[in-house]
Amino acid sequence: MPEKTGPVGGPGLLVELDRDAELPLHEQLERSLRESIQAGRLAAGARLPSSRALAREVGVSRGVVTEAYSQLSAEGYLLSRQGAPVRVARTVRAPAPRPSARSLLPSFPYHFNPGTPDLAGFPRDRWLRSLRAAWRQAPIDAVGYPDPRGVPALRQTLAEYLGRVRGAAAEPEQMLICTGFTQAFSLLCRWLAGRGVERIGLEDPGWHQHRLIVEAAGLEVVPVAVDAEGIRVDELEAAAVSAVVVTAAHQFPTGAVLSRERRAALVEWAEEGERLIVEDDFDAEYRYAGGGLGAVQGLAPERVALIGSASKRLTPGMRLGWALLPSWLAWSLAEAKTVEDRGSEAVGQLALRDFVERGELDRHIRRMRSRYERRRATLLDCLARRLPQARVVEGGAGLYELVELPEGTDEAALVAAAAERGVGVEGLSLHRFVSGGPPGLVLGFACLAEPQIEHGIRLLADALP
Amino acid sequence: MPEKTGPVGGPGLLVELDRDAELPLHEQLERSLRESIQAGRLAAGARLPSSRALAREVGVSRGVVTEAYSQLSAEGYLLSRQGAPVRVARTVRAPAPRPSARSLLPSFPYHFNPGTPDLAGFPRDRWLRSLRAAWRQAPIDAVGYPDPRGVPALRQTLAEYLGRVRGAAAEPEQMLICTGFTQAFSLLCRWLAGRGVERIGLEDPGWHQHRLIVEAAGLEVVPVAVDAEGIRVDELEAAAVSAVVVTAAHQFPTGAVLSRERRAALVEWAEEGERLIVEDDFDAEYRYAGGGLGAVQGLAPERVALIGSASKRLTPGMRLGWALLPSWLAWSLAEAKTVEDRGSEAVGQLALRDFVERGELDRHIRRMRSRYERRRATLLDCLARRLPQARVVEGGAGLYELVELPEGTDEAALVAAAAERGVGVEGLSLHRFVSGGPPGLVLGFACLAEPQIEHGIRLLADALP
Repeated sequence: MPEKTGPVGGPGLLVELDRDAELPLHEQLERSLRESIQAGRLAAGARLPSSRALAREVGVSRGVVTEAYSQLSAEGYLLSRQGAPVRVARTVRAPAPRPSARSLLPSFPYHFNPGTPDLAGFPRDRWLRSLRAAWRQAPIDAVGYPDPRGVPALRQTLAEYLGRVRGAAAEPEQMLICTGFTQAFSLLCRWLAGRGVERIGLEDPGWHQHRLIVEAAGLEVVPVAVDAEGIRVDELEAAAVSAVVVTAAHQFPTGAVLSRERRAALVEWAEEGERLIVEDDFDAEYRYAGGGLGAVQGLAPERVALIGSASKRLTPGMRLGWALLPSWLAWSLAEAKTVEDRGSEAVGQLALRDFVERGELDRHIRRMRSRYERRRATLLDCLARRLPQARVVEGGAGLYELVELPEGTDEAALVAAAAERGVGVEGLSLHRFVSGGPPGLVLGFACLAEPQIEHGIRLLADALP
Repeated sequence: MPEKTGPVGGPGLLVELDRDAELPLHEQLERSLRESIQAGRLAAGARLPSSRALAREVGVSRGVVTEAYSQLSAEGYLLSRQGAPVRVARTVRAPAPRPSARSLLPSFPYHFNPGTPDLAGFPRDRWLRSLRAAWRQAPIDAVGYPDPRGVPALRQTLAEYLGRVRGAAAEPEQMLICTGFTQAFSLLCRWLAGRGVERIGLEDPGWHQHRLIVEAAGLEVVPVAVDAEGIRVDELEAAAVSAVVVTAAHQFPTGAVLSRERRAALVEWAEEGERLIVEDDFDAEYRYAGGGLGAVQGLAPERVALIGSASKRLTPGMRLGWALLPSWLAWSLAEAKTVEDRGSEAVGQLALRDFVERGELDRHIRRMRSRYERRRATLLDCLARRLPQARVVEGGAGLYELVELPEGTDEAALVAAAAERGVGVEGLSLHRFVSGGPPGLVLGFACLAEPQIEHGIRLLADALP
């Protein structure tokens, strides 16, 4: 005997029926549906279950449902046509829908975004092949709660990749798969804060997102100056911090490569005080000229957390990153991730593994590197012609170039004037903490085709006073 | 002219060459590769780039690479066969690999896991179809950084679903897509802690994971008793907390449905003190008899955060959840998520939307509900026959049943004895905070086929002293 009152749940529709009430069941059903439509809980255009399905769920005869449906159709609440599912009429006045808030991310016709690779270059068909293979081959457990550290097979594959390409000392057991760089760094910062760490060194100028994450974790930012050889380790020594973030392979935003001497000094600083280096390895594979240097992590695996992601190497939308951690940190962060999200989606990880193992990642990076090389050449050429007063601080790597502007240029006014012309650029001051220095722009070139770069730089030049 | 020293980076292989050194380039290359292999950075079996590709990347003639490869093959470091890629020999002695740590999750042949749906029942082919459709139709932006609140189209679809099925007042603009229930609740707890909230009420007995998340956020747990009508709102009033977590549709682990009277009292408690109700809506769609009740959120959308996920409805491995938030909380949590992980993967969200819009979610839940109904009947039948001394606290819903054992039964000893026989069961005490009461077991039945249930219960009965 069903309960006396209460809406009957189920995957179909929530309706309230009282079997002891005077009101016939079909009228109760009508009333309930009508109220749901009026309140907007059943939206205009929404599909209703078939009368058979609803009858079964609610535990009434099918006739009760068809009667209710036909009454509500007659009243104009529902649309029912032979052979088509019953839907809520489009004309029903629900509470005025609020306009959708814009995305939190700005959008420009010419967006020189330093953090975005060429999204159109992402090989969807090949990715979909890997995704299909992963779904076909994944064991049943792969759709259960995942290993919170990440799928073991992917950790193995990424460890091999990072050893081969980044010279990392990559131990799969000390790797944590995360939602991009951001989650790994955020977990790490909160772990530090929870152990009494109060301050962390950040490169200045440096990526402003580092600062946002650090501050959200309750840590204080200690800015450490950067020069042409990367972070000033002498300043770091004076700063009295126990952890620092470096972009050693390609400093953001200056493009500096951390020199051999500085690497040695940085590692010594970490070793002697049992300190932690967080190495943000965001785009090291994109190098257009000259030699690069392996990850600092390879020199001192117990003192460095190497954090990288698929964001610049493939696409940010994948939201897959990895942290290669010192042994003393690996299980603590795995535990923190377990409590905070119980691990990242597993089959996508298996797809990434397949993609790397097939050699697709290598091929993609090679293809993108020559594409970016051309785009970069176009950018440098356009800047030389249209903005001769700008000094390009050539990094020879990555997805962006830093451009310094003549002293006295009003950087904020230029950024605003460019935005008015549909050109999105980031001012250097966005990424400065306390450091002084000339005004400048950080110009991403990876996500714009050559004609867009040309036109965008022309518009940017027009925006100069 | 390449730089004088330094390993040449690139997606292929990191090798160090010094063009000014006495040592010929091919010997330098040999040495560098040999060291990488010895150190285990190039693992046994790892694939090397073709000689052509490596020569191009390093900027040497192909002959230099083939010479190095053949020397190392001769020395036994590499394996090269006509037409096959060059690989690191399997016999190379790298640092002894550490044994892989077991998964963090226990595994049993007969695991009565209350938190796992039938993983084998997940319709992979249909999901893959939605995934393919999503990849084919997704705009280019979908592979860029996502809207951190979640893909708008999915929020729209889920809002419609929650309105239809759960009677929720679902506003897509106030929804946040997260990595399962866990991330949403974890973000919320940390947000509360950051605003000076110190304590939060949890149902007792209640889900132990709630407690882990709450404590990791630095909040203190205030246990609130539960009876056959759900949470004791009178105790809640005495507890002096500003937020509480309830499993209103189907209490974990007792299975109680929050009664109408309690709902009204709970909402009044929240309204009068501007307090917050967190409604964990984990398996409301699985109801086998009698009527259910809509979400509490529908009664007071500005006082309730309704958090649900695909975990029990589809599969936990998907790691997709949603929080329907009061307006005053929605943007704050969206901002917190932006800083912590920059949003969840987007194309999987588009696939879920497609899956719901095609009616596949409804169909899946209907199919699973009748499957679970049979499994539940088998469980109840086996318990009656094999463990007549156990009292089943019939909830008539969800993926588990609570079984109370006679006073004096040593619950921990029973759980251990069952584990020895390959049967995984959770003791009720795992989910108790301070509440007393009889010993018991929380038996999940959704993830076991009928013969497994029969055999498992037989083994469990054998484990009784």
